[in-house]
Amino acid sequence: MTEKLNEHVRGVYIIAATPFEDDGALDLASTDRMVDFYLESGVNGMTILGIMGEAPKLTPDEQQSFMKRVFARTAGKIPVIVGVSNPGTNNLAAFAHSAMDAGAAGVMIAPLGGLKTEEQVVNYFAETLRILGPDVPVVFQDYPQVTGVPVSVPTLRRVFDDHPQIVMLKHEEAPGLRKLTQIRAWPDQGGRRISILVSNGGLHLPQELRRGADGAMTGFAYPEMLVEVCRRFFDGDAEGAEDLFDVYLPVVRHEQQAGIGLAIRKEILRRRGVIGSATVRAPGPKLNRDDHVELDGLMARLDARLRR
Amino acid sequence: MTEKLNEHVRGVYIIAATPFEDDGALDLASTDRMVDFYLESGVNGMTILGIMGEAPKLTPDEQQSFMKRVFARTAGKIPVIVGVSNPGTNNLAAFAHSAMDAGAAGVMIAPLGGLKTEEQVVNYFAETLRILGPDVPVVFQDYPQVTGVPVSVPTLRRVFDDHPQIVMLKHEEAPGLRKLTQIRAWPDQGGRRISILVSNGGLHLPQELRRGADGAMTGFAYPEMLVEVCRRFFDGDAEGAEDLFDVYLPVVRHEQQAGIGLAIRKEILRRRGVIGSATVRAPGPKLNRDDHVELDGLMARLDARLRR
Amino acid sequence: MTEKLNEHVRGVYIIAATPFEDDGALDLASTDRMVDFYLESGVNGMTILGIMGEAPKLTPDEQQSFMKRVFARTAGKIPVIVGVSNPGTNNLAAFAHSAMDAGAAGVMIAPLGGLKTEEQVVNYFAETLRILGPDVPVVFQDYPQVTGVPVSVPTLRRVFDDHPQIVMLKHEEAPGLRKLTQIRAWPDQGGRRISILVSNGGLHLPQELRRGADGAMTGFAYPEMLVEVCRRFFDGDAEGAEDLFDVYLPVVRHEQQAGIGLAIRKEILRRRGVIGSATVRAPGPKLNRDDHVELDGLMARLDARLRR
Amino acid sequence: MTEKLNEHVRGVYIIAATPFEDDGALDLASTDRMVDFYLESGVNGMTILGIMGEAPKLTPDEQQSFMKRVFARTAGKIPVIVGVSNPGTNNLAAFAHSAMDAGAAGVMIAPLGGLKTEEQVVNYFAETLRILGPDVPVVFQDYPQVTGVPVSVPTLRRVFDDHPQIVMLKHEEAPGLRKLTQIRAWPDQGGRRISILVSNGGLHLPQELRRGADGAMTGFAYPEMLVEVCRRFFDGDAEGAEDLFDVYLPVVRHEQQAGIGLAIRKEILRRRGVIGSATVRAPGPKLNRDDHVELDGLMARLDARLRR
Repeated sequence: MTEKLNEHVRGVYIIAATPFEDDGALDLASTDRMVDFYLESGVNGMTILGIMGEAPKLTPDEQQSFMKRVFARTAGKIPVIVGVSNPGTNNLAAFAHSAMDAGAAGVMIAPLGGLKTEEQVVNYFAETLRILGPDVPVVFQDYPQVTGVPVSVPTLRRVFDDHPQIVMLKHEEAPGLRKLTQIRAWPDQGGRRISILVSNGGLHLPQELRRGADGAMTGFAYPEMLVEVCRRFFDGDAEGAEDLFDVYLPVVRHEQQAGIGLAIRKEILRRRGVIGSATVRAPGPKLNRDDHVELDGLMARLDARLRR
Repeated sequence: MTEKLNEHVRGVYIIAATPFEDDGALDLASTDRMVDFYLESGVNGMTILGIMGEAPKLTPDEQQSFMKRVFARTAGKIPVIVGVSNPGTNNLAAFAHSAMDAGAAGVMIAPLGGLKTEEQVVNYFAETLRILGPDVPVVFQDYPQVTGVPVSVPTLRRVFDDHPQIVMLKHEEAPGLRKLTQIRAWPDQGGRRISILVSNGGLHLPQELRRGADGAMTGFAYPEMLVEVCRRFFDGDAEGAEDLFDVYLPVVRHEQQAGIGLAIRKEILRRRGVIGSATVRAPGPKLNRDDHVELDGLMARLDARLRR
Repeated sequence: MTEKLNEHVRGVYIIAATPFEDDGALDLASTDRMVDFYLESGVNGMTILGIMGEAPKLTPDEQQSFMKRVFARTAGKIPVIVGVSNPGTNNLAAFAHSAMDAGAAGVMIAPLGGLKTEEQVVNYFAETLRILGPDVPVVFQDYPQVTGVPVSVPTLRRVFDDHPQIVMLKHEEAPGLRKLTQIRAWPDQGGRRISILVSNGGLHLPQELRRGADGAMTGFAYPEMLVEVCRRFFDGDAEGAEDLFDVYLPVVRHEQQAGIGLAIRKEILRRRGVIGSATVRAPGPKLNRDDHVELDGLMARLDARLRR
Repeated sequence: MTEKLNEHVRGVYIIAATPFEDDGALDLASTDRMVDFYLESGVNGMTILGIMGEAPKLTPDEQQSFMKRVFARTAGKIPVIVGVSNPGTNNLAAFAHSAMDAGAAGVMIAPLGGLKTEEQVVNYFAETLRILGPDVPVVFQDYPQVTGVPVSVPTLRRVFDDHPQIVMLKHEEAPGLRKLTQIRAWPDQGGRRISILVSNGGLHLPQELRRGADGAMTGFAYPEMLVEVCRRFFDGDAEGAEDLFDVYLPVVRHEQQAGIGLAIRKEILRRRGVIGSATVRAPGPKLNRDDHVELDGLMARLDARLRR
């Protein structure tokens, strides 16, 4: 059994893809291979069934069988966070408890799309956590580009203050550098220290680490870069971390395109032998010939620079 | 077995609420009572598991058991449409087929939230209907206030032209009077005649009927008004239809408030003895004391005017 | 010279249209007639150059000449508020000062479109009022349907607490009944009493008055209804007020349609002999034949009911 | 006098900043220096008073005096495009004509914020160009991230087909790579060849050039990079172009952050001696100490890589 998530987590939590066969069926063999790949890349944890994990396109049965397969394969070697956002709070809570029972270190919840004011965000978390109960560690996913719900720092502060069980922020508002600095300053202002893992493919990772991020929670298809950048940074070599990052930046930027980005990410994982098919379930993007040629070029350029 | 939905449908398709117990559990006894109430009010059809039916807050098992209870109770007396919108197209198709197997007259699909351009709407329906197959009659739900996906008349035309299985428009863009006129003109422009049922609680029903609507698909808590207004109008008494409508307009307008409206509608149904509890599942609104007092006043005023 | 705006204002502040000739030129003769009409209808004040006044479609010179004509005609008989929202704060402040110099009772400011979080709203007003100076009374226009900036009650409270010069709320979030009750409760919670005038054509005016609104600031083309409803209500005859309101409700609802509503309003004013042309400047709606026939019907029905 | 804009334009059109003094006053001396700097960097054209030029925060008089200063300094050496987007079409047209009279090569128009459907976009351009007249060359600015108006390729095609005077697309939907390929294919599908200049700081410039872009119209603070990347690419050295681009990519990405990006861009221009102050007019961002330190690091890293 893994430890529960807490405010001091540091490092890389990889956002896992959900592998499908070419025909869209869940691909559990690839799931095993993908978990092994992530473990070998040195990540500190894993997050499954998030937005990039296509969770809402799985049936509840598929969610359970994918989740159990991941837990079986990670076998407690690293903590696993399970995304549980759901339009119905009862469904959210039921799935969260089944995840915790299966061995999750915590669950991730984003403000529900459609919340209009920040007071509604505060109330949403209050009611959701009342129904969920206080024993489940929670990651607050702050991703207004997708949820349509911007949350300012004072509102985040209030939600974190009200609910000690929320221990981590998945920080993916963009731009978000100043926000990160402001949240990191909470302990100097009578507030809590929380774990902050950054996202958006790591597009601003070196700057975010310098501003106090604890690491990254994102699904970039070369997780070894994320791991090594964080390692160098926390070993005191910020410039070396950024040097390595910059080598990968052209691909980070390319994979970070909204919508099509998930198809690119899965295709890179496929080309790297991690998963058997790059299929994204409908509705979702598929790469065409131009997209493939473009990716050929970017991956070849990356390989060339890594060889230098 | 009921007939399948077609382009010539006229009248009132009531949007059914999904009744819950005070504790949020599905209330199947109230479901029976509600179906009876709708049948007695004279509606021509029923739509279940739409946005106002809180479908995404049910588990798949609950959706099945609610759906089967409704089919058992309607017993083929009126056609039933089932809302099947879903973030995953495979889930959408599977549920649609189970609904058709259970006796549905058709299914209702809204453009998925997050579609950005109208070309994406065209492609979304093309792919969804390819996966669904051509034999399922479809209602296009045009509700940009909730989906965030505005669709112009030429795009609607293209989608309807491309897919003969889409036979009905749930027309609920607001404002929408001109749009209705433009769609009704399609047959004069080489296009199809489709069934157009209007929504938004019927807020502009008399004007919409005059512009060519075939009736209403909405969930106003006094369905007998919708039925009688349509009956008078189609019997040639447009002014009498509007006279009756205007008596109810203060309540129509009040129930038509976004968000809180569903709680008001369920409370009116509860007060009328139709359902046992006004509970809306979380996240969702609850009426407070002020809201109740306000509703008391509006219902009392309606009763007084009806008695006159 | 009129008194400056304060927290105790009550009654009807009519939102004035800006009359144009058929060719779009500013129509100052109609402006005089319109001011006279509003004065005769018994309104307590007037607001010019708001969103419904097409202010951003005037040149600065036109704004000045319209404004001066209005001030010349009102001649201090009623207070006039001037809308000054502007993408540039320096432009906003310069125009606000010219309005105050010309005799305005206060200015109206909406949160700038594009503000994403409520903290940004707080900061926007802080910076804007710093540049504007403390001597100009301000109306906060809370109209998220148009600005795209929802503001929750705690944020409104903070902005009003921070800036005593903001004395009035133009309340037009919809739905907004609960919000109104919450704001009205501020004095019981250590906060200020502010003037709250409701909008949205007055669509929920009777309910809003019962919840504590001080009146209406809206541009309904029959201002005499707004005046009489408020008069009856504040004279203790809430039911009589609502009776009168309900007679006009079909037209209120029709005029309240977004976009086309302004063309309808101007056309009613034209038919009533108030302005010479219903022209809305481009880009803007124009009524077509169907729209005119529809309006004929609604106005005839209203006349018939008033004659009864 | 410069030539008018046409469909065959290629190269870099720099988006000019509007320089202000520390106190926010228009800085015409810096304007001269900035124009010289852009000319020396080798750009092929210039665009002024766009969204990044803070046009809506200038008074009409300031717009005129800035515009005239730019024309005096460019002295016909390069074509200048003037942004004329405006909430009022009469204002738009009047300013466009004054720009053409002053020597502009064309004007740039974005779909007005608030347009909801793509049919409305079509109608907006039809009416605007009718009022503007057919002799003014127009750039269509496709920037849904800011305007909130997404426009699909078929709609763009229709607008370009309907209006030969629209000769260029400022392509800045993101992601936008596929869109670019689709538009470039128009001539093979019976459509027009138009000039396509890409934006978003050039974040995907190498990929966009490979997909057929004619160059860039963006305001990156190192215009010499944009110029040299385009030169290399059109000379047949796509890999060399991308090599150079990748050196600047960390700064491109940093400057490309929404909102704060303009302050970063102006600060880089200030540090490079181009403008006297980095002031952005209110409402607008100001860099704080952390932001400056961060920028120090990124600029130092760029210098170091350029020296290698």
